[in-house]
Amino acid sequence: VNTGELYVVGLGPGHPDLLAPRARTVLAAADVVVGYRGYLALLDPWLPLRGVVATELTREVERAVIAVDRAWQGERVAVVSSGDAGVYGMAGLVLEVLAARNWDPEQGPTVEVVPGITAITAAAAVVGAPLMHDFAVVSLSDRLTPWPVIHRRLEAAAQADFVIGLYNPRSARRTAPLEAARRILLGFRRPDTPVAVVRNAYRPGQAVRLCTLETFVPEEVDMFTTVIVGNTSTRVYRGRLVTPRGYRVDAKAPQAP
Amino acid sequence: VNTGELYVVGLGPGHPDLLAPRARTVLAAADVVVGYRGYLALLDPWLPLRGVVATELTREVERAVIAVDRAWQGERVAVVSSGDAGVYGMAGLVLEVLAARNWDPEQGPTVEVVPGITAITAAAAVVGAPLMHDFAVVSLSDRLTPWPVIHRRLEAAAQADFVIGLYNPRSARRTAPLEAARRILLGFRRPDTPVAVVRNAYRPGQAVRLCTLETFVPEEVDMFTTVIVGNTSTRVYRGRLVTPRGYRVDAKAPQAP
Repeated sequence: VNTGELYVVGLGPGHPDLLAPRARTVLAAADVVVGYRGYLALLDPWLPLRGVVATELTREVERAVIAVDRAWQGERVAVVSSGDAGVYGMAGLVLEVLAARNWDPEQGPTVEVVPGITAITAAAAVVGAPLMHDFAVVSLSDRLTPWPVIHRRLEAAAQADFVIGLYNPRSARRTAPLEAARRILLGFRRPDTPVAVVRNAYRPGQAVRLCTLETFVPEEVDMFTTVIVGNTSTRVYRGRLVTPRGYRVDAKAPQAP
Repeated sequence: VNTGELYVVGLGPGHPDLLAPRARTVLAAADVVVGYRGYLALLDPWLPLRGVVATELTREVERAVIAVDRAWQGERVAVVSSGDAGVYGMAGLVLEVLAARNWDPEQGPTVEVVPGITAITAAAAVVGAPLMHDFAVVSLSDRLTPWPVIHRRLEAAAQADFVIGLYNPRSARRTAPLEAARRILLGFRRPDTPVAVVRNAYRPGQAVRLCTLETFVPEEVDMFTTVIVGNTSTRVYRGRLVTPRGYRVDAKAPQAP
């Protein structure tokens, strides 16, 4: 029996007030925490770590292999993602590497995925309540997914009137997909459809811009930005984005508690 | 200027280890916490509250009005939802009631939405990593949404190969939509498409069932259940559900850290 322990941990937005206590406990107890340099930096200096392996952004497979390997050697290992580790994060990759090694859960190492607050709900909270109705989450990164698949999903989500959250919307080198996405959505939604551009939610430098599909400026978007596109009901009330769920709300006198 | 404070707080799954510290702080400091009786019970006895207004499940508008009213009177008020308050939760309704009252953010009361871990990412963490690729979240409740809208969204999400999360899948009285949804999805996905049925994630009585679109038993599903339907790539590895993101993973020897 292998006594190693492997945790895949979502850091949430990166602010200590939004990190789950379970995540904090696991990170503090880990022999080694494996992650992208930039996410590990979010924990510094408020969460001291006992050991760290920091790599660059695109080295996900390398990080998963290191983590599995060290857990296999009996260590207590945590792998981190920002947001929720199960949403375009490290959880799937770690399980794939374990499967390739013929991991047997009965023999160990033990594996636990610790959920976190994912980017779209963090961004939504910052701008109001745009996710009160059905929504679709689409990553615009075509590094691992062919563009026609992304295109088809954007079209389907727009056509069926989903609120749409865009992850990985734009990087320094990958600028075309975001403008292409805007054009696809404009084929199904009015130009004045509300759009929220939330950069660094709950992090230093947080910046929010409410605009529309028409006035949207792709240049303001980077890999630390989440974009939320409203459905046909989404409105801006007093500077907050709200997608009504369909309740009848009027200005009637309040009922007594 | 109105000095009231209004917080709309996501409780996450309901386990203390997964409640954001910000949520805990806000709840402990509130003069009154307003919520559905069953969700407030999740906090008892580990989080003492100073004052409580508990109502039944369908009284959302009443709860929003009470909360806004008491904040308007200068109190510090928290309204709770399970999961994330911005995902089919109380955040939108509270903002709609404020708008109906001509709320002016400059004059107060202040309003803050505190994000939480939403049901689909909690359920995903319990079963593995099914949300590694694009996903759509659809509520099957036809109380506020006409069934044809729900039908169209299920069809679009299935057609474009989204992983699909079903919220509010089935209640004691509302049993037809879940079976209808299963039939719609079977029109686009293989009968052996993996399905995870997660009841009471991270709560007492947590129950997980991995099945397929074909072997799925709707009777096991209730309002405390989240259903995740895999896309065409989703697989079961060692009892965990994984949707590969497309990385090349093989059993090669690990690289040195």
